[in-house]
Amino acid sequence: MEYTKLKEIIGDEARIVFGDEIEKEYLTDGLNLEYGKADVLVFAENTSEIIEIIKFANEKSIPITPRGAGTGLTGATIPNNRGIILDVSKMNKVLELDEENFDITVEPGVLLKDIQAYVEERGLFYPPDPGEKASTIGGNISTNAGGMRAVKYGVTRDYVRELEVVTGNGELIKVGSRTIKNSSGLDLKDLIIGSEGTIGIITKATLKLIPKPKNTVNILISFDNLEEGVNSVINIIKSDANPTAIEFMEKNIVENSERFLGLKLPSNRGNAYLILTFDGEETEIITNYTKAKKAALSSGALDYKVLSDTEAIDTWQIRGALASSVMEFNEQVPIDIVVPISKTSEFVEFTNKCGEKHGLQVIYFGHAGDGNTHVSIIRNGLEETEWKKKSHALAEELYKKSYELRGVPSGEHGIGLNKSEYYKKVTEKINIEYMKSIKKIFDNNNILNIGKVYS
Amino acid sequence: MEYTKLKEIIGDEARIVFGDEIEKEYLTDGLNLEYGKADVLVFAENTSEIIEIIKFANEKSIPITPRGAGTGLTGATIPNNRGIILDVSKMNKVLELDEENFDITVEPGVLLKDIQAYVEERGLFYPPDPGEKASTIGGNISTNAGGMRAVKYGVTRDYVRELEVVTGNGELIKVGSRTIKNSSGLDLKDLIIGSEGTIGIITKATLKLIPKPKNTVNILISFDNLEEGVNSVINIIKSDANPTAIEFMEKNIVENSERFLGLKLPSNRGNAYLILTFDGEETEIITNYTKAKKAALSSGALDYKVLSDTEAIDTWQIRGALASSVMEFNEQVPIDIVVPISKTSEFVEFTNKCGEKHGLQVIYFGHAGDGNTHVSIIRNGLEETEWKKKSHALAEELYKKSYELRGVPSGEHGIGLNKSEYYKKVTEKINIEYMKSIKKIFDNNNILNIGKVYS
Ligand SMILES: Cc1cc2nc3c(=O)[nH]c(=O)nc-3n(C[C@H](O)[C@H](O)[C@H](O)COP(=O)(O)OP(=O)(O)OC[C@H]3O[C@@H](n4cnc5c(N)ncnc54)[C@H](O)[C@@H]3O)c2cc1C
Ligand SMILES: Cc1cc2nc3c(=O)[nH]c(=O)nc-3n(C[C@H](O)[C@H](O)[C@H](O)COP(=O)(O)OP(=O)(O)OC[C@H]3O[C@@H](n4cnc5c(N)ncnc54)[C@H](O)[C@@H]3O)c2cc1C
Repeated sequence: MEYTKLKEIIGDEARIVFGDEIEKEYLTDGLNLEYGKADVLVFAENTSEIIEIIKFANEKSIPITPRGAGTGLTGATIPNNRGIILDVSKMNKVLELDEENFDITVEPGVLLKDIQAYVEERGLFYPPDPGEKASTIGGNISTNAGGMRAVKYGVTRDYVRELEVVTGNGELIKVGSRTIKNSSGLDLKDLIIGSEGTIGIITKATLKLIPKPKNTVNILISFDNLEEGVNSVINIIKSDANPTAIEFMEKNIVENSERFLGLKLPSNRGNAYLILTFDGEETEIITNYTKAKKAALSSGALDYKVLSDTEAIDTWQIRGALASSVMEFNEQVPIDIVVPISKTSEFVEFTNKCGEKHGLQVIYFGHAGDGNTHVSIIRNGLEETEWKKKSHALAEELYKKSYELRGVPSGEHGIGLNKSEYYKKVTEKINIEYMKSIKKIFDNNNILNIGKVYS
Repeated sequence: MEYTKLKEIIGDEARIVFGDEIEKEYLTDGLNLEYGKADVLVFAENTSEIIEIIKFANEKSIPITPRGAGTGLTGATIPNNRGIILDVSKMNKVLELDEENFDITVEPGVLLKDIQAYVEERGLFYPPDPGEKASTIGGNISTNAGGMRAVKYGVTRDYVRELEVVTGNGELIKVGSRTIKNSSGLDLKDLIIGSEGTIGIITKATLKLIPKPKNTVNILISFDNLEEGVNSVINIIKSDANPTAIEFMEKNIVENSERFLGLKLPSNRGNAYLILTFDGEETEIITNYTKAKKAALSSGALDYKVLSDTEAIDTWQIRGALASSVMEFNEQVPIDIVVPISKTSEFVEFTNKCGEKHGLQVIYFGHAGDGNTHVSIIRNGLEETEWKKKSHALAEELYKKSYELRGVPSGEHGIGLNKSEYYKKVTEKINIEYMKSIKKIFDNNNILNIGKVYS
């Protein structure tokens, strides 16, 4: 049988599952809406296994779908060409903490929340903070995950020092370096980051850390409506208040999340909210949130509430559950378009108009501080064919508009399977050609996550 | 004649110079030590010209050496294969300042100092700050230049949002985006950054800006000797003082620079110095430099002097002229090895021992805050063959050691022509192969800066 060799590579029967035995959750992504088909699911335990699996797949021309925790929102982990699902979530050891050089080396399957806890216990801090803490670091790196704290600290890309990668050709390479700076040759590391499993499997990562901020203060600001909330963001940024996070949410979706969690937001004024976080020394925080307060109030804020510790926990739980609570109660198309921050309100306005035109509800939440306010198109029980047709037409208009506004299709979730069609429409042909040529170098027989992103 | 077509493309006779008419300065780099030979020097004035020049060079298989201000220290602008020198320094216009999105778009030939002045006049700030302010932004991007403020703010790579590039194939591409975040497809932008003119010519760049820091304070710290100075750096960083810059210099080289400028350092204690800069709000600065002071004094500092404005200007002038003053008085081999910061003192110790072994003087200065203390091997009138042999043997040992310490050959200057041999020795073959394959995609006929870096 075709997969005998694979059984030999893995040895342990518990780590290899065939055909119909594969549990449904491994055939989908974080949306649980679409399911693919695979011949075999393999849980790799170390790098040598991964090399052998990839060499085997090359010999037999078998497609591979790489997988971390499967929390992605773009269909990138859906096996769309059968073959092998290569799950690395069991490679989940912390390998080395280097407190002198402020970095940590981990296997790809370590969960974000485990890294955060591990370093914070030791007075250190890993700033990237995507909403889903049960995602793997390999998945975070492969999608260049963003998250809450990107406004001040940047995204996953900014915290990757060195990677060990098995390319699609089955070669083991090390890219990047353990040093703070590096101007030595072409930058292969950044090619791997955000590549969504299309050119190699990340088997080890060294991440930059910083000292843990001493204090954190959270603020909740209420606005009459969406527009005022969104417009105030640019004024807050211009005030040089240096917030860690600026998150946006509307009342209707907050209520969803409140219901889901059985919690209440510590403000019931207005219809739109910003959560701001500040961190650092106490005096610095006060100076900063005072600047932000002035900017917010002069942009129409109804109030500006400094949250107590328990209020802050509740507020962030409500924020954290927004996405899941929408998924719980309704089917959605998540859109992660990012535009230059000055274009946010124009984009939101356009989205509203288009939603009305197509008769579809649209909700907004998320990372307002970097022009990456998420948009979700909501199904609301619409009949299947209608829903597919309408949501597709609306999405197409939004991607086209984002291009006009000099935005890009994804700020942090990646392109995956679901957005590949739109992505290719709004991206110059020549760029796609270069990407395909690069894929060919790293994955000569075209086995890794094929038919996704640019391919 | 072979170059008739080139004359047509350029039109203007003042912008095309042939053979022996080419001034010597265009045949070398910032070291003015080695000179190449070229058939023609072209000053391009716009992107269409560059496309045509590159297409012409492809047709005729003529090598191109791209050139900004020619201040590089690695021989990267030395025409080592004759052909065309493509100088873009006359493309030096600021194209657009976007104060809402905090970015600026410029042509590649704009000088760093002009960008800094332009944005600072408007309350904005471009953080990267390599020592040579008369370098072009295209050169800075192509070498991923570092500089003084990298400790707090990062390097050139961290401030590039979007690039327009003419590839070695003569195709115009846009890479990166105007947005703050981007997870859309393979990262072609970071492949261009630091590529030292080997895969494309940068014709336009959009750079991220930040609000200009309100205050700046400079500190001069004296130490008995090199070791204590270097060792204190890691303690200062661990103190969470968040300095903008940590620069190191030794007394013997300071004296060089003092003589060269006719200035005096505002301290005459000790034999080794650190300059620290702090910026931000006043209270924040005080908190921070107090932390650093504690760390420095407990690491053996002799004194910790807060500089007045004029003292700070003098001190930075002396620091700024270190490299040039060494070049003025002596021939040198500049080494830009970067090691994990905890390995700095081991590397310095090793370098001292090796210098003694080979009977060569070695001096240290520069960016101690990121493990990138520069080393210069000094000729001191040594006879030519001896100097070449000995400095080569010493350099070889240093590169080998840096590999053992998990360092890389260049932290910020790049590899160019002079370090290519060492770089290829301490870099895995497979990485070099991937780089060459990528070059082939972007520069199919192998015309751009050939025989340099990895090629
Ligand atoms: C409730 C919720 C909130 C979210 N919030 C955010 C947010 O704030 N910001 C954000 O950026 N994302 C967010 N996400 C999306 C998702 O969590 C991220 O994309 C995350 O990085 C995915 O990690 P994962 O381990 O689940 O990867 P997976 O979903 O398993 O895989 C993601 C991609 O990476 C590839 N991959 C995974 N591991 C490897 C590896 N080791 N080597 C090579 N390729 C690999 C896969 O093939 C796939 O292309 C959210 C998701 C949910 C469900
Ligand atoms: C006194 C002194 C101090 C210095 N201090 C520092 C420092 O602190 N930090 C630091 O990083 N460097 C420093 N340098 C080195 C040098 O200034 C930098 O490398 C700078 O980035 C080079 O810019 P340039 O315009 O002179 O480029 P050039 O020297 O002309 O070219 C450098 C490289 O870039 C390529 N290139 C130039 N323009 C383009 C373009 N538009 N498109 C494609 N390729 C291009 C060239 O082919 C070459 O490979 C210093 C140099 C001197 C002389």
